Amino acid sequence: MKRIFYEGMINDVFSLEGDVFHYLKNVVRAKEGDTLGVLTPSQYAECTITELGKRSASVHADIVRETKRHDYRLTVYQCLLKREYMDFAVEKYSELGATEIVPVVSRRSLNELKDKTRDRFTDIAVKAVLQSENEQLPVIADSIDISDITPCGTENIVFYERAETMGMPPVSKDMSIVIGPEGGFTEEEISMLAAKGFKIIKPVSQILKAETASVVFTGYVRMMQDNI
Amino acid sequence: MKRIFYEGMINDVFSLEGDVFHYLKNVVRAKEGDTLGVLTPSQYAECTITELGKRSASVHADIVRETKRHDYRLTVYQCLLKREYMDFAVEKYSELGATEIVPVVSRRSLNELKDKTRDRFTDIAVKAVLQSENEQLPVIADSIDISDITPCGTENIVFYERAETMGMPPVSKDMSIVIGPEGGFTEEEISMLAAKGFKIIKPVSQILKAETASVVFTGYVRMMQDNI
Repeated sequence: MKRIFYEGMINDVFSLEGDVFHYLKNVVRAKEGDTLGVLTPSQYAECTITELGKRSASVHADIVRETKRHDYRLTVYQCLLKREYMDFAVEKYSELGATEIVPVVSRRSLNELKDKTRDRFTDIAVKAVLQSENEQLPVIADSIDISDITPCGTENIVFYERAETMGMPPVSKDMSIVIGPEGGFTEEEISMLAAKGFKIIKPVSQILKAETASVVFTGYVRMMQDNI
Repeated sequence: MKRIFYEGMINDVFSLEGDVFHYLKNVVRAKEGDTLGVLTPSQYAECTITELGKRSASVHADIVRETKRHDYRLTVYQCLLKREYMDFAVEKYSELGATEIVPVVSRRSLNELKDKTRDRFTDIAVKAVLQSENEQLPVIADSIDISDITPCGTENIVFYERAETMGMPPVSKDMSIVIGPEGGFTEEEISMLAAKGFKIIKPVSQILKAETASVVFTGYVRMMQDNI
């Protein structure tokens, strides 16, 4: 079923206009009579498109229910990567079902997050959530300095390719993980995060690119969380 | 240290010409006096560039040793994806240390692999191996039909997002895994692979894009193999 994200209220019959209408018509390429999944921040509805006009669509809600919420929490602290890699990471985190994405300024990362970039991240997250059949959007947080990262889960992991010993990360239903920038963490940053209570882990022998690490390590954590 | 791949013989003093010279000069941007890691199919040498001419470089081998071979085997059967996603998958498999990559023609995949495409895969693999500090190139096999896939490890897994029950894949030091195309496997393909002895596994609740599945599942297997 085609799916869209809609920030308005779902009534028995409601109208889609503006950006969401254009997305429906030009991206989803919906037609009159099509069934349509409509995701809002709190509800999910299976709908039928009863009329598709030039500027708006009329939609009938056949079944409405609350969205399915994840039974886990995963906060990903991602040091700001170059545009294409950061977009990739945000897409993959959203697809894999991260619950919060926190862009981080570190010594070797990009040093600011513009408002319009954060808006782009939100758009990327919405599309990835729709495609992956998630119903819960990740929170895209304001950027913070690496010194303000907090270990907010019951397990808190920094993936660090230059760690001296290898090992697997412990996993729980409530976690935070930290992924470095292209140039890696400084030793001071690692010491600081360890002092805050993060476990510093190197789980694979290869030296991975930052964007590969982002998806591999988050994928691992999500697989484990789903099978606890 | 800058690293290059070289198919010739390493002697005490040797000369780099042609493509590998141009790569050294224009991509690696090496200079006279630079140290250089030279990887061949069987040896790894730490070298010094003694002379950088217009058409060739003269290189002194300071230390020569056998390449480090992986202590595991991982064959990845990848159903042929669209160009950009297949390139991505080959890069990630090489970066993660897969030992063999077998392109597969399935019902919903692209239906042929051209020789020049296979050459491109080899180039991608070489670059990824150099960057990830691997020393063993994956074998890029000829493409085969999905009916010719064989469970060649002690554990053999098909990742199938539409499997009825969820679970984690068993892992060993000698494995083969099968990753589907964008459109997924047909039910007949899944039955056929199960009959051959593959375990059919869905390890995460989300529906992942094919290229995300490729890196997440291969990353998981490699992490586990490195920590057995």
